[in-house]
Amino acid sequence: MARGDRHPARRPMSDPADDRLVGELPLADAPVAAAVVSDGDTVAVSGFGGVGYPKAVPPELAERASLTIVSAGGVGGEIDETLVESGAMDRRAHFQTRSAVRSAINGGEVEFFDRHVSQFGDELRFGQGLEVDVAIVEAVAVGEGWFVPSTSIGHVPSLVRAADRLILEVNRAQPLELTAVHDVYERAAPPAREAIPIDAPIERIGESRVAFDPDDLHAVVETEAPDDPYTFRDPTDVDRTIGEHLGEFLAAEATTNPLLEETVSLQFGVGSMGNALMGALSDIDFGDREVIYFGEVFQDGLLDMLDSGELAGASATSLALSRDGQQRFFAEIDRYVDDVVLRPADLSNNPALIERFGVVGVNSAVEVDLYGNANATHVGGTRMVNGIGGGGDFVRNCRLSIVALPSTAAGGDISRIVPMTPHVDHSEHDVSVVVTEHGVADLRGLSPRERAETLTEVAHPSFRADLEAYRERAGRGGGHTPHDLETAFDWHVEWGR
Amino acid sequence: MARGDRHPARRPMSDPADDRLVGELPLADAPVAAAVVSDGDTVAVSGFGGVGYPKAVPPELAERASLTIVSAGGVGGEIDETLVESGAMDRRAHFQTRSAVRSAINGGEVEFFDRHVSQFGDELRFGQGLEVDVAIVEAVAVGEGWFVPSTSIGHVPSLVRAADRLILEVNRAQPLELTAVHDVYERAAPPAREAIPIDAPIERIGESRVAFDPDDLHAVVETEAPDDPYTFRDPTDVDRTIGEHLGEFLAAEATTNPLLEETVSLQFGVGSMGNALMGALSDIDFGDREVIYFGEVFQDGLLDMLDSGELAGASATSLALSRDGQQRFFAEIDRYVDDVVLRPADLSNNPALIERFGVVGVNSAVEVDLYGNANATHVGGTRMVNGIGGGGDFVRNCRLSIVALPSTAAGGDISRIVPMTPHVDHSEHDVSVVVTEHGVADLRGLSPRERAETLTEVAHPSFRADLEAYRERAGRGGGHTPHDLETAFDWHVEWGR
Repeated sequence: MARGDRHPARRPMSDPADDRLVGELPLADAPVAAAVVSDGDTVAVSGFGGVGYPKAVPPELAERASLTIVSAGGVGGEIDETLVESGAMDRRAHFQTRSAVRSAINGGEVEFFDRHVSQFGDELRFGQGLEVDVAIVEAVAVGEGWFVPSTSIGHVPSLVRAADRLILEVNRAQPLELTAVHDVYERAAPPAREAIPIDAPIERIGESRVAFDPDDLHAVVETEAPDDPYTFRDPTDVDRTIGEHLGEFLAAEATTNPLLEETVSLQFGVGSMGNALMGALSDIDFGDREVIYFGEVFQDGLLDMLDSGELAGASATSLALSRDGQQRFFAEIDRYVDDVVLRPADLSNNPALIERFGVVGVNSAVEVDLYGNANATHVGGTRMVNGIGGGGDFVRNCRLSIVALPSTAAGGDISRIVPMTPHVDHSEHDVSVVVTEHGVADLRGLSPRERAETLTEVAHPSFRADLEAYRERAGRGGGHTPHDLETAFDWHVEWGR
Repeated sequence: MARGDRHPARRPMSDPADDRLVGELPLADAPVAAAVVSDGDTVAVSGFGGVGYPKAVPPELAERASLTIVSAGGVGGEIDETLVESGAMDRRAHFQTRSAVRSAINGGEVEFFDRHVSQFGDELRFGQGLEVDVAIVEAVAVGEGWFVPSTSIGHVPSLVRAADRLILEVNRAQPLELTAVHDVYERAAPPAREAIPIDAPIERIGESRVAFDPDDLHAVVETEAPDDPYTFRDPTDVDRTIGEHLGEFLAAEATTNPLLEETVSLQFGVGSMGNALMGALSDIDFGDREVIYFGEVFQDGLLDMLDSGELAGASATSLALSRDGQQRFFAEIDRYVDDVVLRPADLSNNPALIERFGVVGVNSAVEVDLYGNANATHVGGTRMVNGIGGGGDFVRNCRLSIVALPSTAAGGDISRIVPMTPHVDHSEHDVSVVVTEHGVADLRGLSPRERAETLTEVAHPSFRADLEAYRERAGRGGGHTPHDLETAFDWHVEWGR
């Protein structure tokens, strides 16, 4: 099919009062729009934090073969269940959160690769490993050569630039007021790339709209399907205890750390642990300091603090709220938009901005080893969970980098403080502090041998003797970072049985 | 001893014609200057890439006890041999290259910790893990409240800010013309930190001098001792073959990668491999593109290309030249200074600049695993080599990140492509291309299982069958990143015996 043939008939602007479809646009039903996707295509979709993904067109691709599906963050079952179960998906990048696609990845049916969020916008834009054929993007409004993203931005500007063909889904279930949340700013290409002209975390430097080449637009599809966002478990006692330790540590740190003298810029990782810790923020005594959130996801835990005025503002790339949180946000969106800004992911996660604002990052992990190396992606070193996402952007670039995790998993049968992690996402050079329900291990300035002692103290008591036995055994061989490679994975081997 | 007592008598400006000692300065002999250092002090020294370190005062500290010695990069034997052999050094950060200190670290006599070069300037300045008592810095000229660094800058500005007391060594063996090489720019503290106002790799934005509080200056010591710089082995046949593969890859990449359309900004890691590859650069056909070096060390390999005009300029934080290279550079320093700029290490290695200029980085490693994880610091996972240094800054932030290494070590007995690395400095999420003398493994866009296949092809032929057997064994357990944890380190265990 020649490229021109794929354009559905243009519909003249039929309702000048419709502020979601502005001008002459190639409206189409989802099946017609889907016709522009061929077997073997690389299809990039919007969506980050489980929201803002296209919902109507992807299921129409279920009968295609050998598709590569690209998303910056978590997307819905219309993509990561439907296209997996039908066998349409052969390859997947760069992050996923649904069990269907996770099983296929670990089972070898889908080839998956993940990169740091801050980097793969550029990698898509400049063709490093992936050439994008079609972008399918959810919007709240579309015009001739522009659209307004919906509940997340992620790498939408880069996806659109990289793609040969564009399909937009205008979702009337997403409030048009989201227009005021977005701050879309696109950077020049290296080597003439400019410094990012943001002087403060909540400053806006761009506009609400993403621009595109009208010739690339093949179809605009109308939908009213709600997001199927993440659900967060209620905070457990362990979460609450971790939150208390973290709060005490941060409150003390704020009084001694010159970086936190006037402002505390915080980031929390995606998920239930991050959400629980965001919720515990309001219990921390930061004195007169201004508290700001500079992260990649805005989760439910921040809403109360915004409501109470304890949080001065939030910068993210996704409103990764639960359904309840979304309803709460949408109901008073006009009030929230002044304090919440969504940016493209290459800005929300940008190393330069994380550094400039002196962000304190709190991220979780599957496990941490005795020396501070963290595994955030692979259970047992082999089975992918979600992907690195933006965790590495923050753990690596924050001026104070904290990993918070329960000391055990599997009801206490598995220690999350281990002799050696069989996968490393955040290295010992990046992690400064580890918090569990048993306390705070401040690793700053400590050698690996000293870190091992400190980290043993925040392990669960039932595993400490074994960790000490490992350290004793490993220490016999000497070395800066003592290990006994014959027994380093004994626990993992046992747990894997 | 009260602080005031430590100031040696000030000498009035005795020779107005001495452009190295300008104004009234507290001149002292090394033993007198050394008196301001007490047992237990944390002493930060200048030096990066084995050059620009203080040579007179450190040996006078040999009888002190429990010192913590901090340097941004490699320094001379006056520090890392003398103070280790005398037992004065208890702790060491953040990088070292001498066998005496390395043995003490691995033997447990010295506690060492390393952090990314781009980050620990801030960590020193803001007191994250280390409080600096005394800074000892080599300079080519000193005045009242300013000095000009010598053959390296490293984190000198941050060390000086962090320290309570300052000792300067004015080294008349280092040419005063180095003044024209330096571009010292200091940034504001977060959260009001500004974007770095550099628009091009060789642009100068600062000045030659580092400012200090005259009240902090306790002594100025005159020396004439030359640097004891790195020595580079002559390129081996393997180095040359790696250089050829790399050259072919880069020349092809330049024609297809939009980031390299007009300019190729390159970085090479510290050491003989990096130096050999820098030397091979002139054989690469980059067409009409401007070639620029943006890295942390300027090594001998770049001199020929500067001489021939093939290299438009170089930005680094250290003139890490061999003795011959240093003589060559010094002899025609007036000619070189236009094209070579030295910056503080938090700028030379800054993630934002590496990204903005679209740098292509070529770094080495001890070993790389089947999935692209690289170990750059620990032999056998336990024995420290030099430290992470700036490798992680470039591997992580370059827009194209290449790891180049021989396929074997120990005369061919040890494979550098291994099933699993027992230490990870650069994760699978960071490494894009691996080059050995057996070819180029382009990992971009590949899943871990696909990477393993590609990386096996660049392993030494004598190890490929074993790697394939490992993949087969690991694959039985399934998973996104197949491993057999019971045998993943079989090679390392055998090599350690």
